[in-house]
Order: sequence, then C-alpha cells, then structure tokens
Amino acid sequence: MTLEAIRYRSGSLQILNQLLLPHQTVYEDIRSVQGAYEAIKSMKVRGAPAIAIVGCLSLAVELRAGAGGDDPVTFIRESLCHLTSARPTAVNMGRAARELMEFAENESMEKNSEQLRESVISWIEDMLERDVNDNRKIGNYGAQHILSGVPRDSVTVLTHCNTGSLATAGYGTALGVVRSLHGLGRLKRVYCTETRPYNQGSRLTAYEAVAEGIPATLITDSMAALTMREMDITAVVVGADRVVANGDTANKVGTYQLAIAAKHHGIPFYVAAPSTSCDLSLESGRDIIIEVRPPEELTSINGVPIAAPGIEVWNPAFDVTPHQLITGGIITELGVFLPSELQAALTGRLTAL
Amino acid sequence: MTLEAIRYRSGSLQILNQLLLPHQTVYEDIRSVQGAYEAIKSMKVRGAPAIAIVGCLSLAVELRAGAGGDDPVTFIRESLCHLTSARPTAVNMGRAARELMEFAENESMEKNSEQLRESVISWIEDMLERDVNDNRKIGNYGAQHILSGVPRDSVTVLTHCNTGSLATAGYGTALGVVRSLHGLGRLKRVYCTETRPYNQGSRLTAYEAVAEGIPATLITDSMAALTMREMDITAVVVGADRVVANGDTANKVGTYQLAIAAKHHGIPFYVAAPSTSCDLSLESGRDIIIEVRPPEELTSINGVPIAAPGIEVWNPAFDVTPHQLITGGIITELGVFLPSELQAALTGRLTAL
Repeated sequence: MTLEAIRYRSGSLQILNQLLLPHQTVYEDIRSVQGAYEAIKSMKVRGAPAIAIVGCLSLAVELRAGAGGDDPVTFIRESLCHLTSARPTAVNMGRAARELMEFAENESMEKNSEQLRESVISWIEDMLERDVNDNRKIGNYGAQHILSGVPRDSVTVLTHCNTGSLATAGYGTALGVVRSLHGLGRLKRVYCTETRPYNQGSRLTAYEAVAEGIPATLITDSMAALTMREMDITAVVVGADRVVANGDTANKVGTYQLAIAAKHHGIPFYVAAPSTSCDLSLESGRDIIIEVRPPEELTSINGVPIAAPGIEVWNPAFDVTPHQLITGGIITELGVFLPSELQAALTGRLTAL
Repeated sequence: MTLEAIRYRSGSLQILNQLLLPHQTVYEDIRSVQGAYEAIKSMKVRGAPAIAIVGCLSLAVELRAGAGGDDPVTFIRESLCHLTSARPTAVNMGRAARELMEFAENESMEKNSEQLRESVISWIEDMLERDVNDNRKIGNYGAQHILSGVPRDSVTVLTHCNTGSLATAGYGTALGVVRSLHGLGRLKRVYCTETRPYNQGSRLTAYEAVAEGIPATLITDSMAALTMREMDITAVVVGADRVVANGDTANKVGTYQLAIAAKHHGIPFYVAAPSTSCDLSLESGRDIIIEVRPPEELTSINGVPIAAPGIEVWNPAFDVTPHQLITGGIITELGVFLPSELQAALTGRLTAL
C-alpha cells in the first residue's frame, strides 16, 4: 500500500485529514487558499514539506478557476503571504512563497494574465513531483550512510514525530530513510516515539508502519534514552522544520532531548531534510522564532480533558538542536553533510560525502 | 487544603481512586487484603510508599475483624506474600513485609492470637505515622540543600511523575521538597512533566499543585531538556521506587532521560526517597527487575484508542538511573547523601551532610 496524503488533479485538491487518523480515513476538499490556511493552522495537514505543497496547490486550484482576474500577481502575493503566516516555524512555505513570487513577477513581464496563471500552475505541479523525487534521494543517501558504518546485517533506528508520506508529498524524509532501509532488507526495527502532545508518532508514523509492514515499536517520548541503552540502536534519524547555516536545526519539540540522549550513548544522530528546509539566511538557531501552541493540546485529547483543571501549561511546538549534537550528519537530496559542511554544500562548493 | 489520599480509622480503610483523578474525587472502601492487591495492581493507588502503606493497612483491617483465627501468623505471611507480588519494582512493600513478618513471628512466641493481632495492628498504624514524619524531614533537608547552593531569592525546580500526598501517606517525597520550598517562600515555580503513559504528572501532580496554590507549569516529557535550557532550572528532583547500595535508582520511566539532560545542562539532579525505599541488598541497578506493563497504557486513554491499530508497543514502567547521574544527592529522612555515601549513611556510619 502506498499512503496518499495529498490527492491533486488539475483544478482539484484533497487532503487526508490527519486529525482523524488513525481511526478514520477522511479526505477533505481544499477549494481555496483560505481552506488550505485553515487546514494548516488546525493541523489537518502538517509537516514542513507538506504544508508548503498543500499551500501552493491550493493556490493552483484557485488560479485554475481564474482567481486574480486581470491582476493575478497581486492575488498570488496576498495568497502566499497569508499561507506563510499559518505556521511560522516551518521554512518551506516561506521559501516556496519567495521563489514562486519571483517566478510570477518575472513571468508577468512577458505574459498576459491567462498565460501567467498557466505557468504558475505548472511551476507548482513541478514542485509536487520534485518533492517526492528528492525524498527518494534522501532515503537512499541516508540508508547508505547509516549502513556504511555498520558491520551488521540489519540495523535498528529510532525516530521522532512523523516525517513520512503524511508529512511530505510522499515517501518522507527521516521516515524515507527508514523506508529505504526496509526496502533494502536491512531494517531490523524502527522505534517510534509517541511525540506528545500531538501524538504524530502513535497516530501517524505507527499508521504508516503498520500499513506498509515495516517492523515498528511504539514507545513514549520518555522511554527514548532507555531504548537507546537497551535496544542496540544504530542511529537516531529525525526530520527538520528548518536547518540554518551553521547546522542548528528546529524540529518537533523533543528532538533536542533525543540528541542529548544519543550523544550520551554514542549513537549517531541524523537530521533528514530536503535542501528546501535549509535556511542559510539565518546564521544560528538562536534566530529561529519558535511557535508556542495552545495549552489545550496538553490538557485534552479529542476534546476529553486529561489534566487537572487550572494547571498552567507551556507548549512550545519546536525546539532547536545545536549543530554540535548532530553527530551523524544532515541528510539532503544532494548527499549527507556534517553541519560544518552544509553551507558550502548547498551553495555548490562541496561534493556530497 | 491538605490532600488526603488514604483515610484510615481502626477497622476501616478508604483510598482515593487515582484512576478517576483529576475529574472525579471518589473514595473507595478497601475491606480486605485482596481488595488492596487489586487496587495496587490496577493502580488505583500507586507510588512506592503508598503501596506499602495501603497494603499493610488492608491487613490491619482484616486482623481487626479477626482474620487468621487461631493462626494469625500464617494468615499474615500469606497476605504479605500476595501483596508483595502486585507491583514487583517498588521495594517498600517487600521491605515492610519482611519487617512486619519478623515482628509478628517474634510476638507470636509470647502472645496469644488476639494479642498478636493487636500488636501487629499497632505496628502498622505506627508505620503510617512514621511515613508522614519522614516525608516532612525529606522535604526540609532537600529544600535546605537546594537553597544552600543558590544565591537567588527563589528557585525553579523540575519534577517527574507524582511523588506527593497521593504517592505516600502524606506530604510527599520529591513533591515534599517542592512543598517545603513553597512553604519557605522560596519556590518561584515547579515544572511538572506530564509523565506518559499514565499521566501521573498532568493528573496528579498538577492536581496537588492547583489544590495547594503551588505555582506550577505542566510540560510534556519531551520538553524537559528545552525547559532546562530556557527556564533557569535550579534543580531536578524526582522520587524513587528503589535505591540500591551504589546509589543506582529505579524510578518512573523517563527519569534516566531527565538525569542525562540535567547532566548536559549542569543542573543538579536529586533523588528524594525515604530510607525504606533503599535496598542495600542489591549492589547495583543491573540487579533490579523492571516491570513491563500492558501495551494498552500507550495505545488508549480512558478506553479511547489513540494509536494506530496493530502497532507493537514496549511499555517498561521504570528505568534505572546510574548513580553517576545523581549529581545533587539522595535526599532521605536522615539527610542528603551523595550516592557513594548512601550505604555508610544508612548503616549508621556517616552523619548527614
């Protein structure tokens, strides 16, 4: 089974509502940019790459229906600005918005409104295809790198949150590496953290693993260090919402703690991310603004209260892992790089390892 | 408000059903040893000290009603054996069972059945009183030790699981230290981890903090390292299910990970435990048998499924923190000791710090 989180045909977009997983598989129509904004904000769709793709595809759907009239550039600009504000930590939407805007402005010099709409739609459709291809490359590079250091037949890895088909256009980043290891017949088992408070691990990663027959064991976030000590973990592989120039990485809260535990146990810690998740405009992780989400995500599940009424809550959605803790490397579609090599690699000054 | 988790009068025992907290405050009668066994096994009562006290008090209730007839020693032995098997990791029940059995056997030399029942009941009632007094001492020693190293007016601490009135006969161990700091007007704030999968932090510690006006903030287990980095944490204080001779400590799963993160941030890590939780018969933590609990604790909450059906689960209830990571000390009713000092201190060869 191949899990399809985004269904797109020219003029029509549906997303799998991830809030209802794993119990209900419900696809919802996204008919407008506002519809995508709301789906991203409410986390019906999540994962930095998927957010950017769904946002841009919603724009393509509106453009196909003629949105923007005689001034599509203004419509595109306002739409992208709105979409970027839905989840500020993920860099991919912001990057896609900048690139797409630059493309649209250039095209508008030579083309009429109708032609402009067509070329922007093509640009967005190419982006969807590129993301899946890049993920397959990430999976392959990551799997080879992990296996290269290991004499054993098979490896056991630990991952966090959901970075699979459900977080991307398909295949996945960190979970793409796991898929590749499994595809090579070299994966003994993957341990998935539950990933509180939103349970992306227990709901989504577990769902993907069961669906595709990947040997997987669910643990709570608090069991990760014990698992590293007891279960012969070969590597920890996580995704990224944003990797900055020095390699510091913003990712789902809990990643920092996993990296500390991996370091303590001498286990290589990898970040898997397409180059579109890398933001060389920021020098260090100190510059990343972290989204703080509502207390209710901790105090209730599916609307049912699970905490003592009246308790204060701190709910940061992400944390920043300093590059010193990313000991395995950063896995991109261009190859695997040490944090110190990333900037040169992405600006074309270094060949992949 | 003083939270009362165990209500005992001669011949009658009630416990606050912790499975229903924080939403319902329901006391349940415990009329027999079997009733206590079931309440412990199902975690209506939990926390190593509370388990021992409820177990022994249930025996006192049966003895008051004349249980054991002409051979109370056999009845006491069989009851204690049964109670000890309910939760194997917590040492307190096993220790209480051994001490009480020895006492009962000695008494049986000189006394008839009725007199024996009376003296065993007195022994158990003394145990209840001693536990609360010991906890107040732990709270005081711990608070003074934490404050002694700090020039600031007030401190911020982080704790795990529930070690308060609900886990003991009253006051608490690690949460007793927090209570003492608050009582001294020196507690700025306590951060409580949610403590998956059983949510003792969000359900029980948060409940106690709100009830007593202790400034507290709930976080997920995965946010602890980030909290240490961002929130100026003075100390981490946790309880213990069992401390062995070299200071290695079995406690709620996640403790080991917190200790690693505390070490990484240079934050002192304390274990608060009565000497009855110390088991000098084991040399190191490798000898501790860790209870693995049912998968359903991770995959559902209040009977509602929250994980993908079919996923495998590993659910160890405890982990062992090596003594090297217990950098603050072990707080007992006799004083605060470094792990290396514990054995001598508990055998009377060392004065408290």
